[in-house]
Amino acid sequence: MSRDISSGRQRIRKVLIANRGEIALRVIRACRELGIETVAVHSEVDAAALHVRFADSAVCIGPAKSAASYLNMPAIIAAAEISGADAVHPGYGFLSENAEFADICRQCGLTFIGPTPEDMKKWGGKVPARTLARELGIPLLPGTQVLADVDEAVREAVKIGFPVILKASAGGGGRGMKIVRSEGELRRVFPQAKAEALAGFKNGDLYLERYVEEPRHIEFQVLCAPELGIQMVLGERECSIQRRHQKLVEEAPSVAMTDEMRADMGATIARAMKQTGYTSAGTLEFLLDERGNLYFMEMNTRIQVEHPVTELVTGIDLVAEQIRVAGGEAPQFPTSFEAGRLLRPRGHALECRINAEDPETYAPWPGLITEYHPPGGAGVRVDGGIFSGWRVPGDYDSLLVKLITYGRTREESIRRMKRALGETVIAGIRTNIPLHQRILASPDFVAGRLSTRFLERLGKPGESEAAISS
Amino acid sequence: MSRDISSGRQRIRKVLIANRGEIALRVIRACRELGIETVAVHSEVDAAALHVRFADSAVCIGPAKSAASYLNMPAIIAAAEISGADAVHPGYGFLSENAEFADICRQCGLTFIGPTPEDMKKWGGKVPARTLARELGIPLLPGTQVLADVDEAVREAVKIGFPVILKASAGGGGRGMKIVRSEGELRRVFPQAKAEALAGFKNGDLYLERYVEEPRHIEFQVLCAPELGIQMVLGERECSIQRRHQKLVEEAPSVAMTDEMRADMGATIARAMKQTGYTSAGTLEFLLDERGNLYFMEMNTRIQVEHPVTELVTGIDLVAEQIRVAGGEAPQFPTSFEAGRLLRPRGHALECRINAEDPETYAPWPGLITEYHPPGGAGVRVDGGIFSGWRVPGDYDSLLVKLITYGRTREESIRRMKRALGETVIAGIRTNIPLHQRILASPDFVAGRLSTRFLERLGKPGESEAAISS
Repeated sequence: MSRDISSGRQRIRKVLIANRGEIALRVIRACRELGIETVAVHSEVDAAALHVRFADSAVCIGPAKSAASYLNMPAIIAAAEISGADAVHPGYGFLSENAEFADICRQCGLTFIGPTPEDMKKWGGKVPARTLARELGIPLLPGTQVLADVDEAVREAVKIGFPVILKASAGGGGRGMKIVRSEGELRRVFPQAKAEALAGFKNGDLYLERYVEEPRHIEFQVLCAPELGIQMVLGERECSIQRRHQKLVEEAPSVAMTDEMRADMGATIARAMKQTGYTSAGTLEFLLDERGNLYFMEMNTRIQVEHPVTELVTGIDLVAEQIRVAGGEAPQFPTSFEAGRLLRPRGHALECRINAEDPETYAPWPGLITEYHPPGGAGVRVDGGIFSGWRVPGDYDSLLVKLITYGRTREESIRRMKRALGETVIAGIRTNIPLHQRILASPDFVAGRLSTRFLERLGKPGESEAAISS
Repeated sequence: MSRDISSGRQRIRKVLIANRGEIALRVIRACRELGIETVAVHSEVDAAALHVRFADSAVCIGPAKSAASYLNMPAIIAAAEISGADAVHPGYGFLSENAEFADICRQCGLTFIGPTPEDMKKWGGKVPARTLARELGIPLLPGTQVLADVDEAVREAVKIGFPVILKASAGGGGRGMKIVRSEGELRRVFPQAKAEALAGFKNGDLYLERYVEEPRHIEFQVLCAPELGIQMVLGERECSIQRRHQKLVEEAPSVAMTDEMRADMGATIARAMKQTGYTSAGTLEFLLDERGNLYFMEMNTRIQVEHPVTELVTGIDLVAEQIRVAGGEAPQFPTSFEAGRLLRPRGHALECRINAEDPETYAPWPGLITEYHPPGGAGVRVDGGIFSGWRVPGDYDSLLVKLITYGRTREESIRRMKRALGETVIAGIRTNIPLHQRILASPDFVAGRLSTRFLERLGKPGESEAAISS
């Protein structure tokens, strides 16, 4: 191998995509537009998948199980060596946030299209990321250290403001948490929570955090090239509509954000990215409370599923820019960015994730697609990884296709999404299209009254009708 | 029928689409987004066509032959009455520029979504349109009336500037025309042309026009609602790449146009539309010569095939606005328009017409589509009327699908179109995709060196290679 690792970044000529499905297609498309060759990798069950058909070449890296294929680092590195790829795009999921993998790529002279292993370590874990965010002046949910006693708890709760959430330090995953709405309630609940924590986790330590009743999920897209002095914040996405912490519907911009909020947080994030020297695309996730406060939760050090909504309102091709930055080229931004001015989103974009699943129980629904006809026409973008006659394997994430619509206004992009959902044909398997149609028809959605509790409020089909008729 | 014709325009609730193929789909999509019901009409051979499947209801209006179905006015009007449609959208082609049909619709209380019959008569014919344009100050190709003798011809030719084209008044369709490049040549050719005209057409009258060697085809999109005082000029499209006077590739904006040229002609056209009271969408077609002069040729009083490129660079949904205007609603324009300011196109859009034809001979190639997979991803719009398993009939225009790409720059939209063409799968029939790929790969196209003679210059595949190797 004649690669000169010491010379720093080099122009990319051939990219191995260490992923599958729609994101593999997305990366292949960006490469093709940049004149870069592509290598697909695939598991045995994915031999006929669309990303394999569309790439310039393809290498089988193992059996269906992810651990043996899409997470199999030696097989992926070997595929890159065999095929002569000089770069690896990890997509999202799988190895995309694995610092060890990024490090191995670097050691093998492969350009990892994403942040450095150091970036991933800094931002990858929730706890170190929050510590770092605090140091960088990114706001976190107000909270306390471990509380000495109930009087300290009351003093702190009054400072934070009710409601608060009382958490066991040793708890997690929803266990050992109590929502408290008044001083009286806190005095009542505190000893009881301490006893329960001691019993449940053998550790009675408790702390408090502000409780946000109806949080929105807001996230900021960044794209950075520190070697070129570039730290861009490309506005926010709202991804409040989630089921079991998986996003279903995303949009940009958020109705809950003002230009001022966007500019303020954008400046804070740009400064933080500069101070930490972050490279490539990334997303900082926040909670937004009813009073308009943003609280940092975590950072995703990769491209995200919902990146297209940002692309549509900014005109920036995020995957192409990731590749440019990784190859040492300057990203191609609008002039307004170069002049250091703030980006204002233009129009509105909406994304619906079409999954192979039962629309009510969310049970995965793999199987043969007997007919597939994607929607088309004005303002509709389709990012899919399927075709008619393909058998969706049950081994992976259930995402089939992302429908993305664009309009001058939120109302227009919603109308287009309704139309696009209505004309999409995916036969042979179940999809969550009916759920999306219910979401889009809901008055709360139309009015932009969103929160991460949206879906539990929406209920099951027919529930509200039944309630009315009984 | 309780329709109140006298009360003027009324909100449209149900549209009959008097067309087929991709434009019928386009109109159905716009209606669906506006919450308007749709009625498809179809010939017997089109019973399984996509526009029939997508409309809310469908009526068979006759046998395959257009004259018996899509041009069959009584059948179409009857279909509207039976289905309870209150409006008719004619698409393009077929009855779209038939003033009689528009008039019959009006008489039957159906809103015709397009200009008035009077508009069509004013602008429909080439000769009256040119006379009208002259009166309105829209520039025409410099030319003369009938010439008395060769001396007058020479005086006029000097005024116009060589080369000129000497035409027989009674000629047409390319007959009785001679390109003349100098005074000497004109003196030589004049008597001979007169004799030939007398012999060929029994009329020796000759006249002169400026001859444009390498004309570009530039057209301006208008959208007018005179009752609301609105005359919008939505910029230009370049459609120079034509085969046998049929456009193949269109783009907006044109590389040959400056902001000043666009603003000047835009103001002239807006004034002309206001003076003549034109209603709905329309297109004024011009020749552009090498010196940057625009010369009016004709007006199309309907939506055009290539309207999406304008939609992408303006953000305006032309078909939705046609429908709004026809229903008496104000069009939804960006604020910059409302303030009377000039529209600047944003980014660049390209359209390739994918036809069912031999890419070299242009011979139509109807038949069964055994596989269809449209392209997707960033910056790609697909306006199609086909699906896998559909048999393309040989009775109509060969247009199958319009691929439209958008980018921040012309270079980006070209790269996306190359990528989109490469991933489009239409199996079972021949299409002109290979021709589009040759056009997009040509250095002249990439450099924007376009003229209506582009395709004759491009030659057949392999020709230039053969010339080089011989």
